Amino acid sequence: MCLFSAWLMDNFSGNNGVEHGVMVPQLTELIPQGVSKPFSDVIDVSSGDSHLTGMMPVTFVLRMYVRVIICTPICVCPWSFLDACGYSYSCGAPNVQRSVAEFITRRDGGVPASPQNIFICGGSQRALALLLEILIPNDGPPYTGVLTPVPTYKTFTMLLEETGTVMVPYQLCEEQGWVLQIDELRRALRDSRGHCSPKVLYVINPGNPTGHVQTMKSIAEVIQFAAEEELFLLADEVYQDTVHGDNSEFISYKRVLFEMGGEFSETVQMASVHSASKGYMGECGLRAGYVELVNIDHTVMPFAEWLIGTKICAPVPGQVALDIMARPPQPGDASYVQYTQVRQTLTETLVHNVRRAQEVLNSLPGMSCQLPEAGIFVFPRLQFHPQVAEHAKKAGVDADLLYSRRLLEDSGVCVSPGCEYGQRDGTHHLRLCVLIPTNTLDEMLTRLTRFHLRFMAEFF
Amino acid sequence: MCLFSAWLMDNFSGNNGVEHGVMVPQLTELIPQGVSKPFSDVIDVSSGDSHLTGMMPVTFVLRMYVRVIICTPICVCPWSFLDACGYSYSCGAPNVQRSVAEFITRRDGGVPASPQNIFICGGSQRALALLLEILIPNDGPPYTGVLTPVPTYKTFTMLLEETGTVMVPYQLCEEQGWVLQIDELRRALRDSRGHCSPKVLYVINPGNPTGHVQTMKSIAEVIQFAAEEELFLLADEVYQDTVHGDNSEFISYKRVLFEMGGEFSETVQMASVHSASKGYMGECGLRAGYVELVNIDHTVMPFAEWLIGTKICAPVPGQVALDIMARPPQPGDASYVQYTQVRQTLTETLVHNVRRAQEVLNSLPGMSCQLPEAGIFVFPRLQFHPQVAEHAKKAGVDADLLYSRRLLEDSGVCVSPGCEYGQRDGTHHLRLCVLIPTNTLDEMLTRLTRFHLRFMAEFF
Repeated sequence: MCLFSAWLMDNFSGNNGVEHGVMVPQLTELIPQGVSKPFSDVIDVSSGDSHLTGMMPVTFVLRMYVRVIICTPICVCPWSFLDACGYSYSCGAPNVQRSVAEFITRRDGGVPASPQNIFICGGSQRALALLLEILIPNDGPPYTGVLTPVPTYKTFTMLLEETGTVMVPYQLCEEQGWVLQIDELRRALRDSRGHCSPKVLYVINPGNPTGHVQTMKSIAEVIQFAAEEELFLLADEVYQDTVHGDNSEFISYKRVLFEMGGEFSETVQMASVHSASKGYMGECGLRAGYVELVNIDHTVMPFAEWLIGTKICAPVPGQVALDIMARPPQPGDASYVQYTQVRQTLTETLVHNVRRAQEVLNSLPGMSCQLPEAGIFVFPRLQFHPQVAEHAKKAGVDADLLYSRRLLEDSGVCVSPGCEYGQRDGTHHLRLCVLIPTNTLDEMLTRLTRFHLRFMAEFF
Repeated sequence: MCLFSAWLMDNFSGNNGVEHGVMVPQLTELIPQGVSKPFSDVIDVSSGDSHLTGMMPVTFVLRMYVRVIICTPICVCPWSFLDACGYSYSCGAPNVQRSVAEFITRRDGGVPASPQNIFICGGSQRALALLLEILIPNDGPPYTGVLTPVPTYKTFTMLLEETGTVMVPYQLCEEQGWVLQIDELRRALRDSRGHCSPKVLYVINPGNPTGHVQTMKSIAEVIQFAAEEELFLLADEVYQDTVHGDNSEFISYKRVLFEMGGEFSETVQMASVHSASKGYMGECGLRAGYVELVNIDHTVMPFAEWLIGTKICAPVPGQVALDIMARPPQPGDASYVQYTQVRQTLTETLVHNVRRAQEVLNSLPGMSCQLPEAGIFVFPRLQFHPQVAEHAKKAGVDADLLYSRRLLEDSGVCVSPGCEYGQRDGTHHLRLCVLIPTNTLDEMLTRLTRFHLRFMAEFF
């Protein structure tokens, strides 16, 4: 909340990320300094930054930080402030690489992970950028194609643009809860040949913005497809700690790969990224993520190390956060009870809010919302009257952007329009972060409902 | 010290930066786990990370951090832990952009700086990478040339390589205390034409590794040259707070540019980078730097903002450090007296150590050391017996790398060999960080002296 209050007061011209970057110039014009508005504050649910909207950081993380800084003896986290303020090793502090490897091994039921295959980066996007740099030969056409789910989040498509790769879109099936269909992957790959050289298959599991969680069967199919087509598998698994669906479970690509036997586990090249920004921890401002490389050609590793060397090192406070994420308090530790309670409260809030939001959104005319199984978002679909499309066309914007702007201007609710994620032609969506305090969620839904009914009445 | 003790104990395979990257694989082989060595600890003076070698962080910074985290009311720094853990704005938190602009304006005697020209990045190297991305058209030959001082530090030359630019070296004159000579700039530019398209002039002032500080006259000459040749001026000024020469003063390129009048101040395009990693603060693990853009075409700014958007945001803890650097305690503030004492002690230690190191090094046969005026390094020259060159040639390494490895193996002193910085053919150097506790410096110089005499005797 604090950032946005400041923004309203001081007429800041930035935003807190790039995901609603399209809206920013308009936003600042909409809420200029001093102009009276029909709301007293802005509720920003457009990004995945839950602390921004009032969620408290996990007490344990906060306490560890205070301990790290004041140099008192630490039981769980062997950091001192001197560590936290010096350069770390380029590929990550070795003790963090080691905790992450142990975390992965535990998570995957014993499938081994090695510290030397873990690179610590300043956030998962930095990890993805590094991977794209490694994977993409810088020698002109045919350009490397990256099979990318639609919808996907905006910073990834920006990254593709920046690295000069071709995005090869494959559509996720909304009607079936946003599942990934192998036939659609095949179609996308087939259609891409000729205008690029498809080499990478990017998957987001659990999905962002969709909240879909892949089954083991679905993951195995994707791995088989990647193996057949000799694609590098880029698995974005940053929402792995936020599964909240009744019958859903996060299973990592690496685990499935290894359970498929040597034919796959020794050949399919893959990378998996995770981050301290997402999930229960939410420490996005600290900038910390990791990538685990699997079956990477040994000649590539020195190149990866060289590339990461030019980035100096990942911010050390973020590495501390990653270490805490990988080694949370265990039964018997002093902090275990409180930590477990905080996590449980977070999960309960998330589960409650997802269901509450879905219920309210589905009750609105022209709005339908799949029930997500993971993540911290809902991604409802909007069915507009044709007049809205005409109106938006005249304004030179997408209909859901038009809607989002009006929502912000009228009600002070900032959501992220579906056009930023990519969507099937003629469909429109919104993305809302629901890992926010429940009273804020209720206030947000009340405002949204009031606005939505007015908006739909206006165009009917 | 802590990182290196851990490294010795655990046989880590990384290093704490890339500046002595060339040596790392050898280092780890030289000091394997358990092998007895004629020293009990490694003194690492190879990087600019003074906290690593035992310097205490500035108390004020430490205290501000504790305050930020425990959310007590703060007089100087308006941060709360919620700010510190959420995403910040892509180009930097607006209040930090503002403090940095005010800091620059004060520093430059009133020459105005505007927050919207300040980009906050995850360290000065990230700022330089961003600038190179902006400046370099990605459309094949002729490749953009960047006039670069020799010696220069290794991460910058790695950055040039990574971005596909051509390094156009100009030699600094060691005999005159590493001054920049305009005639040498002209020669370098002339020689580069034909094999690249020279567009950027990179200057480091105060110099790294040289410690030279440019005079106002020298800066004005460089600006005039950049104007005549229509070069973009890239001023790396990260050591601006560490001037310790008796008659030296840091004057910024921007200040001189503005004092040269409208003919220059309205036309010469330049960027200046600074960082919280260097100088008295030394918070290199937090990853924070800024770049100020001057006279940049307005069409370029949205592109710069887009590029920086893909990086999400600079780590927020580092932004807090940058804010503290830009707004240190003022007379009358509660922390002022203690803060001033800490800074003064740091400066005194630095001045004492530089003189002590230079004295000892100059007393050694085959070693000569210019007196630096700024920075935290000394960069002595080594005059080897021809046998050493032969020996090094056989080993396939540069003679100063051979020397550095032997020094580490025999005495546990890790320095940075001159070959990593570039040096005139046939000359050899070492770079040593001297912003370390004085007793550590004395121990290091004792070990170095003992080793050096043995080494020189061996080859004579």
